[in-house]
Amino acid sequence: MATGDIPQGGDTIAVIGGGLIGTSWSALFMAHGYDVVLQEPAKAAWPAVPERIATALRQIAELAPDLPAAGQLRLTTSLEDAVEKAVWVQENAPENVPLKRAIYAAVEAAAPAGAMIASSTSSLVWSELSAAMGDPARLITAHPFNPPHLMPLVELFGPDPDRLETAAAFYRGLGRTPVFLQREAVGHIANRLSSALWREAVSMVAEGIASVENIDAALVHGPGLRWSVVGAHMAYHLGGGSGGIGHYLSHLGPSQERRWQDLGNPALDRATQDKLISGVGAEARGRGIDELEAARDRALIAAQLALSGQRP
Amino acid sequence: MATGDIPQGGDTIAVIGGGLIGTSWSALFMAHGYDVVLQEPAKAAWPAVPERIATALRQIAELAPDLPAAGQLRLTTSLEDAVEKAVWVQENAPENVPLKRAIYAAVEAAAPAGAMIASSTSSLVWSELSAAMGDPARLITAHPFNPPHLMPLVELFGPDPDRLETAAAFYRGLGRTPVFLQREAVGHIANRLSSALWREAVSMVAEGIASVENIDAALVHGPGLRWSVVGAHMAYHLGGGSGGIGHYLSHLGPSQERRWQDLGNPALDRATQDKLISGVGAEARGRGIDELEAARDRALIAAQLALSGQRP
Repeated sequence: MATGDIPQGGDTIAVIGGGLIGTSWSALFMAHGYDVVLQEPAKAAWPAVPERIATALRQIAELAPDLPAAGQLRLTTSLEDAVEKAVWVQENAPENVPLKRAIYAAVEAAAPAGAMIASSTSSLVWSELSAAMGDPARLITAHPFNPPHLMPLVELFGPDPDRLETAAAFYRGLGRTPVFLQREAVGHIANRLSSALWREAVSMVAEGIASVENIDAALVHGPGLRWSVVGAHMAYHLGGGSGGIGHYLSHLGPSQERRWQDLGNPALDRATQDKLISGVGAEARGRGIDELEAARDRALIAAQLALSGQRP
Repeated sequence: MATGDIPQGGDTIAVIGGGLIGTSWSALFMAHGYDVVLQEPAKAAWPAVPERIATALRQIAELAPDLPAAGQLRLTTSLEDAVEKAVWVQENAPENVPLKRAIYAAVEAAAPAGAMIASSTSSLVWSELSAAMGDPARLITAHPFNPPHLMPLVELFGPDPDRLETAAAFYRGLGRTPVFLQREAVGHIANRLSSALWREAVSMVAEGIASVENIDAALVHGPGLRWSVVGAHMAYHLGGGSGGIGHYLSHLGPSQERRWQDLGNPALDRATQDKLISGVGAEARGRGIDELEAARDRALIAAQLALSGQRP
């Protein structure tokens, strides 16, 4: 494949890492007709892989029943074996700079020249990861939102606009919604937003304003529901009446700035951690992680089917 | 009606204020069989009221086609006339403490003794509003999320647990999801969360990390979609693997605290306002507020129909 070509069904994709993110990506690639070679160095992790992929494939089929027959999966411990015929490399190794740099060096040596390397990193940035590469622009960060096979978002950053456009076209072909960072930032966009919101959610628990369960219910039935439809900036535009965000800013900007100063800055100390843990326990009402996750996934699929093509 | 009785269909509800919130509440009450007397002192605002209510009633019918025949609407300029036979008073006057206090004094004098007074205030708190009342505990804050006839959330605060329970039962009967504050806070819960998230969204625009449109897209297709299904605390519980939030906090708490320190604290100065306004303009792609609002409402209805009874 030449640089700039978009991978096609039947091509081989290398997935580095067989954890939650790697298996979820694998299922998505396979559902779209790609063959996947998944490199997972720990053989102890292998048995869980096909089962997780099968579950994800069933969920993808609910969302998109018309996809082609699934591509093939092959597991390997060898990086070189995984990337040898790959047109795309999706890297999901642990968040460790030296480890990832060693992977990229091996991929640069073994993969076809045109194969791009996309890192799913959530907490590291491109400049750090690419610094030791022969061709740094071959790497992009392509951060999915968990679980990648159900969440449309992929956040892209890299220095080469052409390669980014190729990546965006590739992920769009997988039913994803790529967004672009203009400059790299720790946490990209979505995790910075999540972190900012959670800081206030933790603060309200620490300050005794509301319980974990009531805060989560307020989010789910209020701003969360609205943000599944319109973003925060657009919500303020629509909250400004016929004058839109310009009217909002000129009339309520100063009170918004005062409100920002009133927001909390909590510490995750022992007392606050205990409140969070017992509060989430009350919210879970005896349901285990697996049961909650399955319910979350069913609801995510229902919401996406309902919202597809419906948003402003 | 005695204190503690939940209003029944056929009862009369007084709605104070004929703006967006007052008309939206009126439609919701009417759709559930209540007669509404809406007090709006500015007769110039009257002509828009029935049209807005009719639109809202049509949207409610899409969400809940089996509701009883709608109650009656009557407009009045007189507060005394509005509340004389009311079993419930929903106050949506401008956010002005002396004005609201004067309203409560008039309502206390003219309304039946058992009628509760619920303020839709978004930015004021109960202690400020109730200070001059004969029976302060008769007032609660009951903050809806805009638009109230489509968004389930109602945030409740007041000093009397029995009256709060009555209020919660009343709003549940209207298909709402009431949540409780343990102590009052400016912005209640949802607007504090919104404000915290928007601060970071504005900061990323100001810092040139991403465009308004890409930030909104990241939210809608990432955390917003997930928060329409599970709250922020529950999301970290599910992000902690089989160890849940306890595992998350002990392993990633310190990095979350560092990330909080890295979040922005922007000013809404002229330059930032200009970036927000032009960015939202690009996102709107020529569509006016009415068109965007109609699309938002259609998508909200679709999401709620899909999610009803589906969330963990």
